Amino acid sequence: MPHTRQPGSVGPVKKQFHTFCEPPHELELEGGGRLGPITLAYETYGRLNREKSNAILILHALTGDSHAAGIYAEDDPKPGWWDYLIGPGRPVDTDKYFVICSNVIGGCQGSTGPASVNPATGRPYGLTFPVITVNDMVRAQAHLLDHMGIDRLLAVLGGSMGGMQALVWSVLFPDRIMAAIPIATTAKHSPQQIAFNQVGRAAIMADSHFNGGDYYGGEIPRSGLSLARMVGHITYRSDEAMHERFGRKLRGKKALGYNFGIDFEVESFLHYQGDSFVERFDANAYLYITKAIDYFDLSMPSGSLTAELARAKCKFLVVSFSSDWLYPPYQSKEVVKSLLVNGIDATYCEIETRFGHDAFLLPGEMDTIIGNFLANLASRGGIKAPSVS
Amino acid sequence: MPHTRQPGSVGPVKKQFHTFCEPPHELELEGGGRLGPITLAYETYGRLNREKSNAILILHALTGDSHAAGIYAEDDPKPGWWDYLIGPGRPVDTDKYFVICSNVIGGCQGSTGPASVNPATGRPYGLTFPVITVNDMVRAQAHLLDHMGIDRLLAVLGGSMGGMQALVWSVLFPDRIMAAIPIATTAKHSPQQIAFNQVGRAAIMADSHFNGGDYYGGEIPRSGLSLARMVGHITYRSDEAMHERFGRKLRGKKALGYNFGIDFEVESFLHYQGDSFVERFDANAYLYITKAIDYFDLSMPSGSLTAELARAKCKFLVVSFSSDWLYPPYQSKEVVKSLLVNGIDATYCEIETRFGHDAFLLPGEMDTIIGNFLANLASRGGIKAPSVS
Repeated sequence: MPHTRQPGSVGPVKKQFHTFCEPPHELELEGGGRLGPITLAYETYGRLNREKSNAILILHALTGDSHAAGIYAEDDPKPGWWDYLIGPGRPVDTDKYFVICSNVIGGCQGSTGPASVNPATGRPYGLTFPVITVNDMVRAQAHLLDHMGIDRLLAVLGGSMGGMQALVWSVLFPDRIMAAIPIATTAKHSPQQIAFNQVGRAAIMADSHFNGGDYYGGEIPRSGLSLARMVGHITYRSDEAMHERFGRKLRGKKALGYNFGIDFEVESFLHYQGDSFVERFDANAYLYITKAIDYFDLSMPSGSLTAELARAKCKFLVVSFSSDWLYPPYQSKEVVKSLLVNGIDATYCEIETRFGHDAFLLPGEMDTIIGNFLANLASRGGIKAPSVS
Repeated sequence: MPHTRQPGSVGPVKKQFHTFCEPPHELELEGGGRLGPITLAYETYGRLNREKSNAILILHALTGDSHAAGIYAEDDPKPGWWDYLIGPGRPVDTDKYFVICSNVIGGCQGSTGPASVNPATGRPYGLTFPVITVNDMVRAQAHLLDHMGIDRLLAVLGGSMGGMQALVWSVLFPDRIMAAIPIATTAKHSPQQIAFNQVGRAAIMADSHFNGGDYYGGEIPRSGLSLARMVGHITYRSDEAMHERFGRKLRGKKALGYNFGIDFEVESFLHYQGDSFVERFDANAYLYITKAIDYFDLSMPSGSLTAELARAKCKFLVVSFSSDWLYPPYQSKEVVKSLLVNGIDATYCEIETRFGHDAFLLPGEMDTIIGNFLANLASRGGIKAPSVS
């Protein structure tokens, strides 16, 4: 019953917020300019050991948040998004490891983003929020670790955009991580990936309620954000998985309607995904985060992925999924090849699955592989479990 | 210089319109009800032989039209959409064959569709136009052939939605065609294909100018239709082709803009495609035609594609393209398997290409294969070229 257990051997999931109130109050941004003070929403699971050597940073994807595991109360309808992976006795074992997950800057789940109030104006930033990058997200996370007194992480771990952050950690802070686990990701966004994101952004910006991003307190660009999410959801699923789940099944009718209402289950599913997303996500945050991942290109500035990855020092476990056509396995293989050319200790696993990109969010073989990788890492590094107080 | 030659050995391309003014004035529709009188816009190339046995019907795709080949005047910027395939001495040789291409009903390029004036009201149909199907499109084409006095076609030939029409011809009018050439198509729309179309329709219907489809004479749902086309264009291209053509090249700038303007070539391309499409296509027609192809399922009503294709009598040449992920080769193979189970004479060719679904509109190996297939067909059938007058 994974969904009803509390993760962390020290009891309920913690939810904490931290404001960078000590100097520097501002984060220097890759695109120029500064942002601050910054708030990062984060959660922790398990306990830090005395040596502060058992910390693992979980990195979330485009629409994820800091609530990676557990429930806050017994009647929570569902646990954090990676609950089956993180918890006592689970692959990311909170009896052994101290697990941290923070919401990215630019997001809308507690960390500073375009929906946050700009202290200079007293109003939400909207599109006056600076365009941030994956590097900026990672630098903010490094500040959080400074604040927590953690010099070095056992591992950084994430899928999709989370995998991009894991890659960035390995080159921006090579001495601060023992291992990186980038999953279902790429070293640079491809034109097809950019194209899908641009459609989503165009849908949001074409919404008559968008108002140049200044819609807070009024009607929100509901249909635009919903459309963006619908496009996204198609790319998260494989053709095969959609055949299996939806086929050509009709929705609530026995025959085609011969009108422009919903005919098929798959249409109903997409609209449900779009509509429910609007309730929990900010349209501007969708713009900023998709832009950050479109800008992501680890091969820059030299133009050579191998040259850039030469800065990395940690071990790598790279995971991809056979039916993931949004971040296809060839993109993971490019990363692995560049790592191996550099003589870096890298393991690669392509997992056979029909679930497409979504596979990284679903229980499967990946879990054991990650669990074993972390256990070996901790064992070889002499990492001690936290003492029972 | 294929683009400057006039197709057809009898001179310039003809453009003709035909109204079904003889009884029956109305077409019975698959979804119930009737539509009429109907206008079909069509073009012909070459000349019909005395036996009326050398006619080939070209079937266009979602956004195609009856202008399949040739130019109307020397200064036309570009010829019809399949010009390299159709013309004197070309694979569909207009010195030998009489070639016909008509715009589908439900379309907006001269044939009766939602932008047409409803004779009962004197106003454009808009969404009062009945939902039509691929079968309806084909039945209207059969009426056109009746009008032209052509009992039997040498071949029907089309890609994508054109391929669906070719398949329908084979089962609705098995005695009226000698061969069918369905290209880059499917026997039924998959949930992924439906999902992409539904996003396009939702974008159009969410546009504040859509007005329930009654936008004629006012502002049109420009941004919605543009978005629909942008989504479509991603699906027409392979990942590989986009890498090759766009990569991560910037558009008109030397560095990332760090704002929400266009950064990448691929974004600019998509917007260009969307914006130019709006100038030539009607948003309601996009709704009707995508609905028709989403409804397309040749395995119905029995549920067995093999059982339904048992009605076919003609020869088949089925063509797919290796990198077409919108209508992947496995969908063509399903058609071929069902044909072969029925003992029908079917040839299958999967062409290796990096151009994705768009490959069916580009010169390549397909042309020769089609040319040879037609030449063999005509030779074995004793089809005579039209006499020189």
